[in-house]
Amino acid sequence: MTCVLDPGIRVSEIFGPTIQGEGMLIGLPTVFVRTGGCDYRCSWCDSLHAVDNRFRHEWKTMSTDAIWQEVNLLSGGRPVMVSLSGGNPAIQPLGALIERGHREGYRFALETQGSVARDWFAELDVLVLSPKPPSSEMTTDWTAFEACVEAARDKPQIVLKLVVFDETDYGYAKDAAARYPQLPVYLQPGNHTPPRPYGEEVDMDGIMKRMEWLIETVTCDRWFDARVLPQLHVLLWGNKRGV
Amino acid sequence: MTCVLDPGIRVSEIFGPTIQGEGMLIGLPTVFVRTGGCDYRCSWCDSLHAVDNRFRHEWKTMSTDAIWQEVNLLSGGRPVMVSLSGGNPAIQPLGALIERGHREGYRFALETQGSVARDWFAELDVLVLSPKPPSSEMTTDWTAFEACVEAARDKPQIVLKLVVFDETDYGYAKDAAARYPQLPVYLQPGNHTPPRPYGEEVDMDGIMKRMEWLIETVTCDRWFDARVLPQLHVLLWGNKRGV
Repeated sequence: MTCVLDPGIRVSEIFGPTIQGEGMLIGLPTVFVRTGGCDYRCSWCDSLHAVDNRFRHEWKTMSTDAIWQEVNLLSGGRPVMVSLSGGNPAIQPLGALIERGHREGYRFALETQGSVARDWFAELDVLVLSPKPPSSEMTTDWTAFEACVEAARDKPQIVLKLVVFDETDYGYAKDAAARYPQLPVYLQPGNHTPPRPYGEEVDMDGIMKRMEWLIETVTCDRWFDARVLPQLHVLLWGNKRGV
Repeated sequence: MTCVLDPGIRVSEIFGPTIQGEGMLIGLPTVFVRTGGCDYRCSWCDSLHAVDNRFRHEWKTMSTDAIWQEVNLLSGGRPVMVSLSGGNPAIQPLGALIERGHREGYRFALETQGSVARDWFAELDVLVLSPKPPSSEMTTDWTAFEACVEAARDKPQIVLKLVVFDETDYGYAKDAAARYPQLPVYLQPGNHTPPRPYGEEVDMDGIMKRMEWLIETVTCDRWFDARVLPQLHVLLWGNKRGV
């Protein structure tokens, strides 16, 4: 007999339901499970509280059961979309949580940069792959990225979500899209005033200007199958957490 | 031999490509063909320049060919999503335009309140049915609405888009959704400061507050398969036309 212990999942925060603020599922009521820890450190990270070890004391190691109970409580026991985000949620053991939720009709979307592949990606309903452009100061390992696409085995809907700060990022986004012509593309203007430790104040005018620039760039370039969407939660609530 | 004359299409404006600001196709580059004339007169209409006969002198009767040439020019000959809006575009003869565009790979979405059904609805790619809630001071003829759904014959993707100003509108939206449980639902907070003749100034804070109220209402009500989306073009450009 083998005894399988629940290894525990490192959680930064669980909140919702609120609407998904970005990408393919924008506007959809969602409960967020944000895991702690990341193998990346993007220069403009907007979730440092779930990435930087300085915030480690805020994270909790929770069992699948404990997370499931909290999600269930927040949703009032009613099936809802659950977004697994981070940090990089792919470095946590989330397969059992997905299986548990599916049994009760919940759906799961996972957001990751595509640096770590997991077998259980194939159990997701939506896999959002968000490779990080040059402005992040990270380098994309396209072999690891491809492993993520393969791990999904055409089962979840896969989409590309690309943050764009400038022309260089835009070129990177076009390249990423060209590598995966079968995947829908969502472009998102970057927030150059992300939450702490850089400060709490959002430059809304600046974000809106970047959004306008991105719309103009995409339409002038006649990239007519890319979608351009802002981060709705930032427009609504600035850098506030838990909404 | 029968000679079929092109009856002409009454056009208020053709513009784009810009992104679709609302509903299912939000964020997608789109060329808009806004027709003139409407069988409704919603109290808060945000496109009166395409509805009210006082603006009739701004409308042009155009042939399918002429419209097609303009769309083609705007898109640089590259297939793009074309949104047929109004007014009520269903009262114009748009079948030939859709056929023409499809031959060259363009796609077509039509936005209508669902008061007038047309055979050519079945040729669309997306049919957005937007029945008007009580705050509009219009009354929905559900028999006419059902005829629109039937005319589409399950060929285009049909979605419901519902503008919500208050609790009463919200109740109406729930009722409409319950009538068509198979159709995806998009909820949109109303703009209580629509463009002229009421004035050009948009109350952005008021719109954002209504958006927040709607998100809270939907999530507390656990209506987890409805999407809540703002009018992005209003957030970006206020009441400006042609963007």
